Amino acid sequence: MAKRENISMSVIRRLPRYYRFLRQLRETGVTRISSTELSVKLGLTASQIRQDLNCFGGFGQQGYGYIVDQLCLEIGNILGLKGGYKAILVGAGNLGQAIASHMNFTEDGFELAGIFDSSPFKIGNRIGNLEVSDTSELEAFCAEQKPTMAALCVPREAVEKLSDQLYQLGIRSFWNFSHYDISVKYPDVIVENVHLNDSLMTLCYRIHNAKES
Amino acid sequence: MAKRENISMSVIRRLPRYYRFLRQLRETGVTRISSTELSVKLGLTASQIRQDLNCFGGFGQQGYGYIVDQLCLEIGNILGLKGGYKAILVGAGNLGQAIASHMNFTEDGFELAGIFDSSPFKIGNRIGNLEVSDTSELEAFCAEQKPTMAALCVPREAVEKLSDQLYQLGIRSFWNFSHYDISVKYPDVIVENVHLNDSLMTLCYRIHNAKES
Repeated sequence: MAKRENISMSVIRRLPRYYRFLRQLRETGVTRISSTELSVKLGLTASQIRQDLNCFGGFGQQGYGYIVDQLCLEIGNILGLKGGYKAILVGAGNLGQAIASHMNFTEDGFELAGIFDSSPFKIGNRIGNLEVSDTSELEAFCAEQKPTMAALCVPREAVEKLSDQLYQLGIRSFWNFSHYDISVKYPDVIVENVHLNDSLMTLCYRIHNAKES
Repeated sequence: MAKRENISMSVIRRLPRYYRFLRQLRETGVTRISSTELSVKLGLTASQIRQDLNCFGGFGQQGYGYIVDQLCLEIGNILGLKGGYKAILVGAGNLGQAIASHMNFTEDGFELAGIFDSSPFKIGNRIGNLEVSDTSELEAFCAEQKPTMAALCVPREAVEKLSDQLYQLGIRSFWNFSHYDISVKYPDVIVENVHLNDSLMTLCYRIHNAKES
């Protein structure tokens, strides 16, 4: 069984990558893979991969490698992808629409149960199999459906008030696309930030400094 | 002057966050801030912040703190945000549209110079002040404009061939939204990946394991 104490976030952040890659292997009919082969394909060292997987109990056999199907299943279980955690998405602008239509929430452990916006131009629009609801319905929706997670695709100036409201309504985990640090105010929440600007600036840094050297 | 050798990616990834925050401070008229105040607002320790900024030569004065305007400018310079690196975006689906319209490339060090798609339903559409061009025009465009960076918003199955082509056309840095690891094939390129699925799965892991404990 997996041992899961004090696992560093950097290990955890590599798990989805292993999982995606193993799923692809499985889809192409590969049944077995060595940690060396895995490492070449993933651009990591074999020892890194063995160490990472050992954090959860280890799955490979010396000289035999990993059984793709089994490892894929195990990592999926570790990630909790069968959780089906109920999620809502707030903000149906360009980004929210892209996220709602582009992502397969189910495969990643969630069930997208509602999309909300305050703009009359957005309310009532269909995205996938959901209709955008008025944010004024959030309270009733949360009371009834008790979503675990909210994906926040609203502008920065709207997110503090929104996260206050969602916290009051019982939501304790956020997928946050805005540049507002929810966890400073609410240290007890789980926040996964996607800071696209930071990513772009980091890319700029790397280009800038590669050019200089 | 900044000393910039062997700076870890984790330090570099915090710089955009400092920058954003300092810019906000500047906009609200704050002229000076101590590392302690900075740390509280950013949810980091004061010593971490001092250490990070010392990697680049250090800017604060003992007992006085940081001059917001100066520090903001310095970090912007370190990040190379005045670079105006010419960029293209390929894939004008939901995600590409969101990225092209939502992001301020200029503020983050780039100039978005072209958007490309292969679908006749997308070609000719306006996004911001750009018109979506046919991917068949990529070669001529790159020969003339010599973009530094390409943002890849195409489906996974399209990205290998596309990155091959763009590499041939001289592009060596990528903002990659797909789940294809460009750097495995081209170790000499700079790739900044935005893996939304990985982020969502990591959130799932954290929810799943918080529930269990």
